[in-house]
Amino acid sequence: MKTYLNEIKENENVDSLFLVKEKSSGLTKTGNAYLKLKLVDRSGETEGRIWNSVDTFSGSFEKDDFVHVKGKVISFQDHLQLNITHIERVKEEDILLSDFFPTTEKDIEGMFQNLVEMSQLIKDQHLCHLLGLFWEDKPFVERFKMAPASTRLHHTYLGGLLEHTLSLTQLVLKNVSHYRGLNLDLLITASILHDLGKVDELTYHRSFDYSDEGRLLGHIILGIERLESKIHQIPDFPKDLAIQLKHLLLSHHGQYSWGSPKRPMTLEAVMLHYLDDMDAKINGIQQFLKTQVSEGSRWSPYHPAFERFFYLPTFGAEMQLINNIEENGSEQE
Amino acid sequence: MKTYLNEIKENENVDSLFLVKEKSSGLTKTGNAYLKLKLVDRSGETEGRIWNSVDTFSGSFEKDDFVHVKGKVISFQDHLQLNITHIERVKEEDILLSDFFPTTEKDIEGMFQNLVEMSQLIKDQHLCHLLGLFWEDKPFVERFKMAPASTRLHHTYLGGLLEHTLSLTQLVLKNVSHYRGLNLDLLITASILHDLGKVDELTYHRSFDYSDEGRLLGHIILGIERLESKIHQIPDFPKDLAIQLKHLLLSHHGQYSWGSPKRPMTLEAVMLHYLDDMDAKINGIQQFLKTQVSEGSRWSPYHPAFERFFYLPTFGAEMQLINNIEENGSEQE
Amino acid sequence: MKTYLNEIKENENVDSLFLVKEKSSGLTKTGNAYLKLKLVDRSGETEGRIWNSVDTFSGSFEKDDFVHVKGKVISFQDHLQLNITHIERVKEEDILLSDFFPTTEKDIEGMFQNLVEMSQLIKDQHLCHLLGLFWEDKPFVERFKMAPASTRLHHTYLGGLLEHTLSLTQLVLKNVSHYRGLNLDLLITASILHDLGKVDELTYHRSFDYSDEGRLLGHIILGIERLESKIHQIPDFPKDLAIQLKHLLLSHHGQYSWGSPKRPMTLEAVMLHYLDDMDAKINGIQQFLKTQVSEGSRWSPYHPAFERFFYLPTFGAEMQLINNIEENGSEQE
Amino acid sequence: MKTYLNEIKENENVDSLFLVKEKSSGLTKTGNAYLKLKLVDRSGETEGRIWNSVDTFSGSFEKDDFVHVKGKVISFQDHLQLNITHIERVKEEDILLSDFFPTTEKDIEGMFQNLVEMSQLIKDQHLCHLLGLFWEDKPFVERFKMAPASTRLHHTYLGGLLEHTLSLTQLVLKNVSHYRGLNLDLLITASILHDLGKVDELTYHRSFDYSDEGRLLGHIILGIERLESKIHQIPDFPKDLAIQLKHLLLSHHGQYSWGSPKRPMTLEAVMLHYLDDMDAKINGIQQFLKTQVSEGSRWSPYHPAFERFFYLPTFGAEMQLINNIEENGSEQE
Amino acid sequence: MKTYLNEIKENENVDSLFLVKEKSSGLTKTGNAYLKLKLVDRSGETEGRIWNSVDTFSGSFEKDDFVHVKGKVISFQDHLQLNITHIERVKEEDILLSDFFPTTEKDIEGMFQNLVEMSQLIKDQHLCHLLGLFWEDKPFVERFKMAPASTRLHHTYLGGLLEHTLSLTQLVLKNVSHYRGLNLDLLITASILHDLGKVDELTYHRSFDYSDEGRLLGHIILGIERLESKIHQIPDFPKDLAIQLKHLLLSHHGQYSWGSPKRPMTLEAVMLHYLDDMDAKINGIQQFLKTQVSEGSRWSPYHPAFERFFYLPTFGAEMQLINNIEENGSEQE
Amino acid sequence: MKTYLNEIKENENVDSLFLVKEKSSGLTKTGNAYLKLKLVDRSGETEGRIWNSVDTFSGSFEKDDFVHVKGKVISFQDHLQLNITHIERVKEEDILLSDFFPTTEKDIEGMFQNLVEMSQLIKDQHLCHLLGLFWEDKPFVERFKMAPASTRLHHTYLGGLLEHTLSLTQLVLKNVSHYRGLNLDLLITASILHDLGKVDELTYHRSFDYSDEGRLLGHIILGIERLESKIHQIPDFPKDLAIQLKHLLLSHHGQYSWGSPKRPMTLEAVMLHYLDDMDAKINGIQQFLKTQVSEGSRWSPYHPAFERFFYLPTFGAEMQLINNIEENGSEQE
Repeated sequence: MKTYLNEIKENENVDSLFLVKEKSSGLTKTGNAYLKLKLVDRSGETEGRIWNSVDTFSGSFEKDDFVHVKGKVISFQDHLQLNITHIERVKEEDILLSDFFPTTEKDIEGMFQNLVEMSQLIKDQHLCHLLGLFWEDKPFVERFKMAPASTRLHHTYLGGLLEHTLSLTQLVLKNVSHYRGLNLDLLITASILHDLGKVDELTYHRSFDYSDEGRLLGHIILGIERLESKIHQIPDFPKDLAIQLKHLLLSHHGQYSWGSPKRPMTLEAVMLHYLDDMDAKINGIQQFLKTQVSEGSRWSPYHPAFERFFYLPTFGAEMQLINNIEENGSEQE
Repeated sequence: MKTYLNEIKENENVDSLFLVKEKSSGLTKTGNAYLKLKLVDRSGETEGRIWNSVDTFSGSFEKDDFVHVKGKVISFQDHLQLNITHIERVKEEDILLSDFFPTTEKDIEGMFQNLVEMSQLIKDQHLCHLLGLFWEDKPFVERFKMAPASTRLHHTYLGGLLEHTLSLTQLVLKNVSHYRGLNLDLLITASILHDLGKVDELTYHRSFDYSDEGRLLGHIILGIERLESKIHQIPDFPKDLAIQLKHLLLSHHGQYSWGSPKRPMTLEAVMLHYLDDMDAKINGIQQFLKTQVSEGSRWSPYHPAFERFFYLPTFGAEMQLINNIEENGSEQE
Repeated sequence: MKTYLNEIKENENVDSLFLVKEKSSGLTKTGNAYLKLKLVDRSGETEGRIWNSVDTFSGSFEKDDFVHVKGKVISFQDHLQLNITHIERVKEEDILLSDFFPTTEKDIEGMFQNLVEMSQLIKDQHLCHLLGLFWEDKPFVERFKMAPASTRLHHTYLGGLLEHTLSLTQLVLKNVSHYRGLNLDLLITASILHDLGKVDELTYHRSFDYSDEGRLLGHIILGIERLESKIHQIPDFPKDLAIQLKHLLLSHHGQYSWGSPKRPMTLEAVMLHYLDDMDAKINGIQQFLKTQVSEGSRWSPYHPAFERFFYLPTFGAEMQLINNIEENGSEQE
Repeated sequence: MKTYLNEIKENENVDSLFLVKEKSSGLTKTGNAYLKLKLVDRSGETEGRIWNSVDTFSGSFEKDDFVHVKGKVISFQDHLQLNITHIERVKEEDILLSDFFPTTEKDIEGMFQNLVEMSQLIKDQHLCHLLGLFWEDKPFVERFKMAPASTRLHHTYLGGLLEHTLSLTQLVLKNVSHYRGLNLDLLITASILHDLGKVDELTYHRSFDYSDEGRLLGHIILGIERLESKIHQIPDFPKDLAIQLKHLLLSHHGQYSWGSPKRPMTLEAVMLHYLDDMDAKINGIQQFLKTQVSEGSRWSPYHPAFERFFYLPTFGAEMQLINNIEENGSEQE
Repeated sequence: MKTYLNEIKENENVDSLFLVKEKSSGLTKTGNAYLKLKLVDRSGETEGRIWNSVDTFSGSFEKDDFVHVKGKVISFQDHLQLNITHIERVKEEDILLSDFFPTTEKDIEGMFQNLVEMSQLIKDQHLCHLLGLFWEDKPFVERFKMAPASTRLHHTYLGGLLEHTLSLTQLVLKNVSHYRGLNLDLLITASILHDLGKVDELTYHRSFDYSDEGRLLGHIILGIERLESKIHQIPDFPKDLAIQLKHLLLSHHGQYSWGSPKRPMTLEAVMLHYLDDMDAKINGIQQFLKTQVSEGSRWSPYHPAFERFFYLPTFGAEMQLINNIEENGSEQE
Repeated sequence: MKTYLNEIKENENVDSLFLVKEKSSGLTKTGNAYLKLKLVDRSGETEGRIWNSVDTFSGSFEKDDFVHVKGKVISFQDHLQLNITHIERVKEEDILLSDFFPTTEKDIEGMFQNLVEMSQLIKDQHLCHLLGLFWEDKPFVERFKMAPASTRLHHTYLGGLLEHTLSLTQLVLKNVSHYRGLNLDLLITASILHDLGKVDELTYHRSFDYSDEGRLLGHIILGIERLESKIHQIPDFPKDLAIQLKHLLLSHHGQYSWGSPKRPMTLEAVMLHYLDDMDAKINGIQQFLKTQVSEGSRWSPYHPAFERFFYLPTFGAEMQLINNIEENGSEQE
């Protein structure tokens, strides 16, 4: 069982898996070599030291490896430190990414099932076929279920992309029938695929960051490429339908300065932009409030990207506070 | 029964009500005085001439009066013109504003009833009391039911303010439960009252325009004043609740450049802003498409305020197009 | 008499009033509890320690209390520290706020008297009546005389709001007669009331910060509310006059991006905006130059809000440098 | 005596000076050549025709010449037209520019005298010397007295540059003593010279337009050049003083986007910018209101450059309206 | 041989090809039907009338058809008009587009040959292969040679895309060696392909406009799609090379507000952006000067997109004016 | 020979020239005065101490003096420190600025010679004369050869101004013949003189900073003044030529927000702006990449002024990388 770094205590023995964030060597005052490590997991980080069998251990793992560590917690200069007696490399497939990175609080498989069911509401055969091709693409689905939705602003946790995608699709279903003349099939498809390219744009196996193609091309273009390659496999996919679907992906950021090369020009694109932006902002603020507001305070610190403080009101008993967000899987529209 | 100006034909007799947009006098070649009028109703406008009893008629009505006109349609230099044999002033209370201005296609009383019922979902007693005071304020309710929501961009017709308010409140109800921790009572109240001040900002009894206080103060401030005066009548209305409600009104435009003196700082304010903006934009685009797209075209003209063209796709039979927007009164959540 | 923290010296005894900025407890190496305080006054801050009677003293005051302290200054790790032998809570009404916060260099009562006299230049009876109601409102006047004008950019000291208000009103009197057709009564009234809402927006009894309503509504709206509630008490206050006065308050920031929901639309509003902005900027730069320019230098550091450096020239004897700003009360126009 | 074109009447004889705006020739139905002219003066324009002695007259003047015209006013197709019997070229020095272009309502010589007197308030000998050189430069003074201050936005009439310069200098004198530490001599000099380069930037002998160097270099640079060439003539003009004076000229537009290559970095430059901007805006709005507001209306049309409507309130008798702007020459500070 | 509409004269017979821009029917005073046409070619437009055999002709062609017309030029109400005696539809493949639209002054085949030769300077085999695939794609090459580069701002004529592409590639070759470390092969490839998507974005067979996919997706995305489909055909095309090449296409507009979803992040992308922008601007200004400057004037009218006037200096004989731009095909580096 | 501070080692003796960045005095525990210095050269900085003959040495040099120092390197608290036994002031003319500041890697004299030769390509006699006057101005040439081109963004090293000027002039020569109708003489002259004013704007004898006139007036204005004073010496220099040349200097930043008071209005000005901007950006990025990219990384850190990361691709052997930028002096056009 995983021991989390924010729970270790002086004098305890530790036997668990960690990620090596930094690795360097030093010399003791008596001239012996030792290894200095920074170990991390999703809960925090700690210094580690290897004083014995340095030569043996040193070659057996590298920075950015996951490792199995045995050792003892000591206190040095007011900080806890791990004196490591055994360390060995562990393969990525033998660890749980969620032990090392923040992870959605929701059930990933349940959310995914829910999204697949929503995609089955689509009646248009070409769009059905298209989504089917994505669901059959196992490597894609694996990444789609684990990726965060952003490195910094919203849904910044494993499963965040799926959570945001599901949330947006639910919002679309709630709102689409409010206006006359919107294309339901197109909107469901677009909401499911709108951030598709993030599976290629972001890396999340060592830290949440951008891939080379992510920085140079961006998820909008990467998504268009994945989409085009699936459409290509469908005989007679209508050209006009493909153009509109791509337009929804291209324009969903809503304005040039947010990296959309086109602004929304159809009613569906306008709705998709507003609901996507609202979902990202509300999640981003909720995450910020949850992690940054000190107890007893009604104000968040200043949020530099949103350029404002946020206020957390308290309400009397009488108020109808929304406490029960719909659970995945039990959504009944 | 009203005769509309876009339906009159040469040689017909006309006996109906119009609005005098312009009034001036001229001299015939033989030196006799006559009156030149421009008459309008919601369908269009026409020139009118009074050749006889000029002195009598001239003093009996002014520019911007509603008038009862009898006369005959003739053709002069390729345009239709009305030779008036009788004209007299009619009081505003004796005409139907909707004969003279574009009017919502929905049932105003039904929409209002629907909105009042929604306000009864609120459990918080102070907010209940507050809305009750508004509903009891007859002069307010009369204006609230007839006012347009804007002079130019969206819901620019009589009843538009009510239609937009109802639509936003419905959207709020659809979306509020999607997130945890939002204050339902506050959001319903704010969505009903968010554009409150437009009853004072806009004039619509002669044309859709701004009142003096509308231009100089704006509907956000005017709404705050109406709100404050009602809150003042409620004993023990909680100060914090009043502040939050006002914050929702102040910040609903979302950014300084759109005239909001504050940006949304609570989750409720963020949601209200997005849904309000989405509703205004979608209605505005729909109105634009309906009136500006020529038959057979899939593209609108350039929209200068939105800085783009809009696209009207056509879809095959298979597609699920949303045709039935929920009717007022039959909304079942 | 107040002992200021920037004047205390090693080995001196101290017996004076301070504000408790931080309070926490620690354990000595021998296991005894002690209290760690951060004490501040307007001149600076110092660490305090209570080694004895910890239980007794601990419950008798809290963070953010004003306290009467007796103790001795010692030096610890190159810093001065106060070993406290006696401490007790003092009520806010028994201290002088100006001992704890930066305060205007001018005479507050003199400035206020001067402002009241200026308000007596107004001939319009409704505006006279209005200002009279403010001057009779004791709680308002108390706050109005003590509040700073801003937390960061200009007149950031106790009495700053009054100083800025007086300065602006004097500027208005100097400039109004330069143009034909301006309304003197309206301009005097508006300059006196333009930042009215700052008495509610800012807090200054523990630090210069924003109140909840200050952040959520802002001084422009808070000022409008105070103004409206006074106007409400005056029978027959002309509606058009009220609208114009409110417009002056609303638009005095001059542009949307500075939080004004309306831009100046009358000549009076245009002048008020320019003079207000000039007064704030000049005071802000003067404060910045006074505190931030190192001796011998002719350049200030970079000012991030103004996005530039400022230059302090030196002039030969011949130059007419303005040294004597008019004294309050001796202003002769 | 000048006959103005907005006063001519059918069948009158005209004998007066005009400017030829357009000149072309035509053929009568009987095949005779005639000349078509457009004649203008400050009050308006009219068509002119020369039917006789066409060959003689045709070579004696060109487009953009001032001409002495004799002829008779007739009415043709509802417009007045001038049948010209005699026409001859007049030299520019023999006409009054103010007959042909809008001109300040104030006394040009009086204003100039006033400005010179203000320049004598300066005690610094170098600045005195500098202004003296400008006043002795006759060609400069002639242009300085006649030039408009702008082609479009404010003081757009002959004498406008002088009127604006005098107004700004008066404003500086009113405001400079309000703050401590400002350099009076420098501010007076800078306000007198701030728009100096407009004598080269604008042309106003045929219409209000930009000269080539005006468009390509702008009045700020052109002013710096004139200033530098005068400074060059003064032995030992202090370098630091020259830099500061030039900085005041360079930065008086206040921001890059208004063409200032530097933003104000001294207190004097900050004040000069605000007062200059205020004076230009107030004059611009007053001109706009005077020419564009229709009788009985309280609102101006939309002003595209200022992006707003302006409001012209009416006030009761009780109000202190400023009616008497100080007369030139009687200014007593 | 083509007769151009700006050369037809009264009473001439015409026998030539035109494009039908408008087509409608009318009734003569005697009640007979006739056809009203607007005919255009690259030189201008004229009205056409068909008085005889109306029924026969009417069904044989439509608006937007190219037609072979015989008829006679008459003068009606001061305008020339074509009385048509014979008209029949002509297939698009039987006309020369350059007879109907403005066309590059350069030799299209020569420019294309020149560009192909430049592509042979590339040493990298994958990029060579890639360009080879484009050159073998006959439908692409046909469109690439005829398309304009823009509908409005620069190279707005048939062959403009090719001319701009060739010009940019020449500029790249001139400049690339000026800096150390730039990738020549990548830059040549990117300059040749940078506006690739314009063959799909623009339509130019009836007028210069946007296609549906052009408006909804834009040439940047359309180009990426064409590029990706060719890369897909090349075994082992290096992924990193593909990413960089796509980045060059995506970022060549240089900033978000000009529709680039990414800003240039490599040295090659920075250079490509500057040279592309310079070439477009200089061509745009030259076209504007050529068509908009009236004879004798040194100033262009105001250019709304560039927000300025342009100046056309005249130079003395001594100046080295560049008169001989290198001819296509004779370029020697 | 210079000993560089990044090469000194513990226990070595040092005898070399340094710049005194800081100078203060302290007291040893035994109460003796000593001097604390911070010494710098182009390679880094170190602490220095003078323990003996303090009185003698103290008065012999000041902060910002260059000094000749003898002493020994010791290690104190993990840092190297210089115990100084002898120190004396050295005149600026006796040191090499390039020992103290980063310096261009190219040959300054060679670059200058190259530039002079380019100026001899000009055929217009007035421009020839003008450049000749600059080359004869020894104090100007000395500064022009040593000045950096910027304090922060590009060519921030001694000789940088010359390097950038030469580079831009070479670019102009490469590109000018690509377009028809550009004035070669004017463009060469303008590229040589475009940043002329930087010799006055920047200081680089103690650190890279702005002079007073640099901050208050800027290099654009300072350059215009130097240019005007040379033009003044040339009889009959054509006014129109002077205006155009000045326009090129004024507008070379291309937009108001970058400090240009005019935007480019001639073809020459447009080209100069693009090439200047490209040269500055590419050099700036290359400097940034060279100093900021850690080994093995393909990404730079975030560049705050350019608001992006930069990518350093690696290429296979096949690629044609540009390695040999043309050497100064061997440029053959």
